[in-house]
Amino acid sequence: MLSFQNDYSEGCHPNILARLNQTNFLQTPGYGTDEICASAAQRIRAACGGEALAVHFLVGGTQANLIVIAAALRPHQAAVGAVSAHINVHETGAVEATGHKVLGLPSADGKLTASQVRQAVEDHENDPDREHMAQPKLVYLSHPTELGTLYSLSELEALSRVCREKGLYLFVDGARLGYGLTARGADVTLPDLARLCDVFYIGGTKCGALFGEAVVISNPAIAQDFRYCLKQRGGMLAKGRLLGIQFDELFRDGLYFSICEKANRQADRIRGVLAKKGVPCLVSGITNQIFPILPDPVLAELEKDFVLSPWGRVDGTHQAVRICTSWATPEENVDELCRALEKIL
Amino acid sequence: MLSFQNDYSEGCHPNILARLNQTNFLQTPGYGTDEICASAAQRIRAACGGEALAVHFLVGGTQANLIVIAAALRPHQAAVGAVSAHINVHETGAVEATGHKVLGLPSADGKLTASQVRQAVEDHENDPDREHMAQPKLVYLSHPTELGTLYSLSELEALSRVCREKGLYLFVDGARLGYGLTARGADVTLPDLARLCDVFYIGGTKCGALFGEAVVISNPAIAQDFRYCLKQRGGMLAKGRLLGIQFDELFRDGLYFSICEKANRQADRIRGVLAKKGVPCLVSGITNQIFPILPDPVLAELEKDFVLSPWGRVDGTHQAVRICTSWATPEENVDELCRALEKIL
Amino acid sequence: MLSFQNDYSEGCHPNILARLNQTNFLQTPGYGTDEICASAAQRIRAACGGEALAVHFLVGGTQANLIVIAAALRPHQAAVGAVSAHINVHETGAVEATGHKVLGLPSADGKLTASQVRQAVEDHENDPDREHMAQPKLVYLSHPTELGTLYSLSELEALSRVCREKGLYLFVDGARLGYGLTARGADVTLPDLARLCDVFYIGGTKCGALFGEAVVISNPAIAQDFRYCLKQRGGMLAKGRLLGIQFDELFRDGLYFSICEKANRQADRIRGVLAKKGVPCLVSGITNQIFPILPDPVLAELEKDFVLSPWGRVDGTHQAVRICTSWATPEENVDELCRALEKIL
Amino acid sequence: MLSFQNDYSEGCHPNILARLNQTNFLQTPGYGTDEICASAAQRIRAACGGEALAVHFLVGGTQANLIVIAAALRPHQAAVGAVSAHINVHETGAVEATGHKVLGLPSADGKLTASQVRQAVEDHENDPDREHMAQPKLVYLSHPTELGTLYSLSELEALSRVCREKGLYLFVDGARLGYGLTARGADVTLPDLARLCDVFYIGGTKCGALFGEAVVISNPAIAQDFRYCLKQRGGMLAKGRLLGIQFDELFRDGLYFSICEKANRQADRIRGVLAKKGVPCLVSGITNQIFPILPDPVLAELEKDFVLSPWGRVDGTHQAVRICTSWATPEENVDELCRALEKIL
Repeated sequence: MLSFQNDYSEGCHPNILARLNQTNFLQTPGYGTDEICASAAQRIRAACGGEALAVHFLVGGTQANLIVIAAALRPHQAAVGAVSAHINVHETGAVEATGHKVLGLPSADGKLTASQVRQAVEDHENDPDREHMAQPKLVYLSHPTELGTLYSLSELEALSRVCREKGLYLFVDGARLGYGLTARGADVTLPDLARLCDVFYIGGTKCGALFGEAVVISNPAIAQDFRYCLKQRGGMLAKGRLLGIQFDELFRDGLYFSICEKANRQADRIRGVLAKKGVPCLVSGITNQIFPILPDPVLAELEKDFVLSPWGRVDGTHQAVRICTSWATPEENVDELCRALEKIL
Repeated sequence: MLSFQNDYSEGCHPNILARLNQTNFLQTPGYGTDEICASAAQRIRAACGGEALAVHFLVGGTQANLIVIAAALRPHQAAVGAVSAHINVHETGAVEATGHKVLGLPSADGKLTASQVRQAVEDHENDPDREHMAQPKLVYLSHPTELGTLYSLSELEALSRVCREKGLYLFVDGARLGYGLTARGADVTLPDLARLCDVFYIGGTKCGALFGEAVVISNPAIAQDFRYCLKQRGGMLAKGRLLGIQFDELFRDGLYFSICEKANRQADRIRGVLAKKGVPCLVSGITNQIFPILPDPVLAELEKDFVLSPWGRVDGTHQAVRICTSWATPEENVDELCRALEKIL
Repeated sequence: MLSFQNDYSEGCHPNILARLNQTNFLQTPGYGTDEICASAAQRIRAACGGEALAVHFLVGGTQANLIVIAAALRPHQAAVGAVSAHINVHETGAVEATGHKVLGLPSADGKLTASQVRQAVEDHENDPDREHMAQPKLVYLSHPTELGTLYSLSELEALSRVCREKGLYLFVDGARLGYGLTARGADVTLPDLARLCDVFYIGGTKCGALFGEAVVISNPAIAQDFRYCLKQRGGMLAKGRLLGIQFDELFRDGLYFSICEKANRQADRIRGVLAKKGVPCLVSGITNQIFPILPDPVLAELEKDFVLSPWGRVDGTHQAVRICTSWATPEENVDELCRALEKIL
Repeated sequence: MLSFQNDYSEGCHPNILARLNQTNFLQTPGYGTDEICASAAQRIRAACGGEALAVHFLVGGTQANLIVIAAALRPHQAAVGAVSAHINVHETGAVEATGHKVLGLPSADGKLTASQVRQAVEDHENDPDREHMAQPKLVYLSHPTELGTLYSLSELEALSRVCREKGLYLFVDGARLGYGLTARGADVTLPDLARLCDVFYIGGTKCGALFGEAVVISNPAIAQDFRYCLKQRGGMLAKGRLLGIQFDELFRDGLYFSICEKANRQADRIRGVLAKKGVPCLVSGITNQIFPILPDPVLAELEKDFVLSPWGRVDGTHQAVRICTSWATPEENVDELCRALEKIL
């Protein structure tokens, strides 16, 4: 069986493993105060083009989301996200467990629009009973979204403008950021994110690391005392250098970008076959995730040789699935899948 | 100006005020351990037909909602309510501030259905990723709802059955319960609520009391240590007898029922005029709240003499308003309003 | 039996009750936005000598403490108080339930000193592991303290200075403030509190009101959005005018001061007898609470006619008790108690 | 410089690294549902002698502490620990951030006694105002403690008996458990912990793993839905197998025990030299941590070649330090330190 199930099925890129092996008996101070973390943070600041950015390394995405949001908001304030946002659906109420409501806005493609955010904030501002409602104070986006869609630079700029005008924080969850930055046609860069967001994170877990997300903070109000916030929520790793190693390797010689770009190209090949065969998708995407809608017999045939992720029944005879490439996907596996699709469809 | 704006504009029923005057220099132990509270609780247990029920007096509705829900749930568990539920919209994220997500289900009339709840719970149970989602554990209803609608006994029984079958708590917010229990055609009684719910409350603030909600708990898992929960959330009144007085008077000789019934009859009269004139309503109700949709000039004319609550624009020429009678509404005011409606419409 | 058990055994001062009677059928807007609240807030601002002060009316002390502290702190920050502080001992972990640690400092008389606070903050600042500890950010004092002791103006000024120098908020719990302001020899005034604190509250419940605490906020960082914070924690009363009435009456013609002063004078008389008879006290106080240490047989004899509060056994033959006068204590009762003490001791 | 600073300065035992290398391209399901985690859990159940035990793998100790305590307690309940307990001092208020008070009991050696716990619980039970206080419901111990001290089996049995009699949970933090289980003279075993506690964890981070703590739960009330609790607090690792690998290796052929025992023997050698030279210690211990009190010039001389942890000044001329051996300490380094101590002292 060849798996296209997700982008966190394997361990990590060999460079990271090599570094773990090399440094195993090195003695370092704990809790992220070591030189490897310092080096990794410096590489990320350089890639983001901002010497003043605060960079912190966390173990996982839910942890990053809940710590950032808890650090940023006062108790009566809420995060605004798409109804389908990871924080609203798939984190077991992690944000609410820190005391904050998530205000879900409707979205067909997993994205929010600037006008939608403006409307929500102005509706709140203009409501005479607004003190009886949680106050929108932070906008949460994923880039790519849950559905693999991407913001264009102009969309992100418009969102950032609304947030600044209205006094909201802009927070981008970049669990799969590498794939988003290197998609053919994507125009958002790391310096753009650093410039337009108050805080965002660069996902490692799904982009070649063993684990780890690098939180990048440009707004000093959130950056202040952030290490206390990490510690309080169990997000400070004793052997913090493990996280430093992930990002020091990923951001050496552009590795982060090259491995994610490779996965995007593989997905482009699969998308090409699906398009040629006229297979519709749930959403049109350009990153490493594809959501084709397949007739039941086609899917049954495919699943003899490939592991895909079920994504819900669309009608009586069709199902959506997710096909996911990754930094670890061998080129031969893509060849096999393309051949199979050509044959079965 | 005559006000039909809401049911909490005045002080309290004169019997309660008289009792406050009589007992002012009585010395009692604090924190709800006095004999007046004991008497009031006993009257409520008798009205509910359950000697084993725990009865606690709280100051307000948001306080009651957040304390009950926090007392009932483990951290990963969520309350299920209508999207329009008071806890989901108008309590500034009070439930989330205790750490719990509110799962909003769609509802046109403010009510949930048993099949809707069953579906939501089974969707959760059957989801292979359910551990990544907040677990539905408590169903929150209002009776009457935000929109003045009521559950029938059979609807409530069906909801209770689903909750028991699936291991969820059933919690009824009765901020306006008096109006719901005495509406013409309503068939849910206090003993029904005590039998079908795990916990509910009998609203005082909007039903003739200065303030106060009487929380009635039949499920021992929620009742245990409930006074600790009260105290922890600032819900224990030093001069607890003040709350005892409200309910000892309201539940003496059926006062609670007679004053709310009077308001319902007044609303029936107004509804009669609106129906005769063919005025549509947002929802059809039988309690003390009416939500007519009025042409702009009619509303403008009415507002010269009456204070109503705006309830949103319906189209370019019509607005919805709320007309609310209460235990305190003088019969003459209703006469005036009916006459004005007859004339203007 | 004559009770000297506490200062919240009775209802309220007759002026307040009269106002409740007069205004019962007045229709007012809800949630504290009415004119009576506005008038009461204005009287308090005038008494505090600060037109820019924010004034909010809450139902009780635990509620006031938890809402103020939650509104003021970021998640990793802690309140500093005496080990014996009400928030640390007698509020069922209400502050912790909002997510914040209470750091208890040792205190024999219930008071903190400026040097003690400075030391605690500097110990934190200088600890290389400080990010692994909750950050002291708010100093919580009671005036009078749990033991009836008072800060002098110079002590309070020193505490305020340390707080400002170190960037901490100063919060004074004034549940019994009226007794503290009018004690013979006390030199702290309302304008002093407004000037030296970031936030404090003027207790009503124990000083002649039916219920209610008036929170006075001078620091805009805490004042911002405070009504959202009230609502979220169930601290916003639908019939908010009830709280307005308490304080509008208490702050009319100095009533708050005169009734508390009367109780202090009564306590002075009792203290005089105890002193004459050489009875030691747990702490020396000048407000309405006295903590004499009495031989068991004396106490047994007293308890035939008087209700006092047990305050713990001191040794095999002596117990401490609390004797409490109040705005409601009749002069004759004090006469009786003094006579009894003269006779028995 | 040779470091004896702590037991988490290096990476991990070579067996673990080898397994990481071998399995790097293995595709596994995520979130701890893979076969390596299953195997590791089975090895731990076997070592604990309990087939029904629930085993979960978490990344770190603070995370384990806060998740276990939040999963176990209702909102008004508190954890009881030594004043010096890690949860009370060094986790930035992590437990309070989940809403629970930590009740600190005095302790000179970091341990609690059964009679002390019984007294605290009975004081609470017997207090007429107990509902105004957080309710003790869980006893938190560390084994070894912060000071390297150990419970004897009979002490632990007495604590367990009190907890069961009084209805409290017993929770043991085993961040350094390996050192505690293998100390010369220690008589507590893994099956004892499984039998006497409701929940405990086996520390990996300080005992040879890259990271990871294995939480072992015997009480079904805590075990229920524990994975929801993990996910909600950011404690569920996408590549969960990484944690499985740590413990599958550590519990293969007794590796966990042999590497910790080695460190204890090294510490015994150092203790031997200190004892021979009459150097006093803060506490007498038998695990991998030693807390000698050294004259300033001795310390200055030692610190030319060795990195130790400062542990506070004892008097004008002496300081306490911590000397820590670990699974990673080379035998030669111990030789060097012993020689240096022999020479300098």
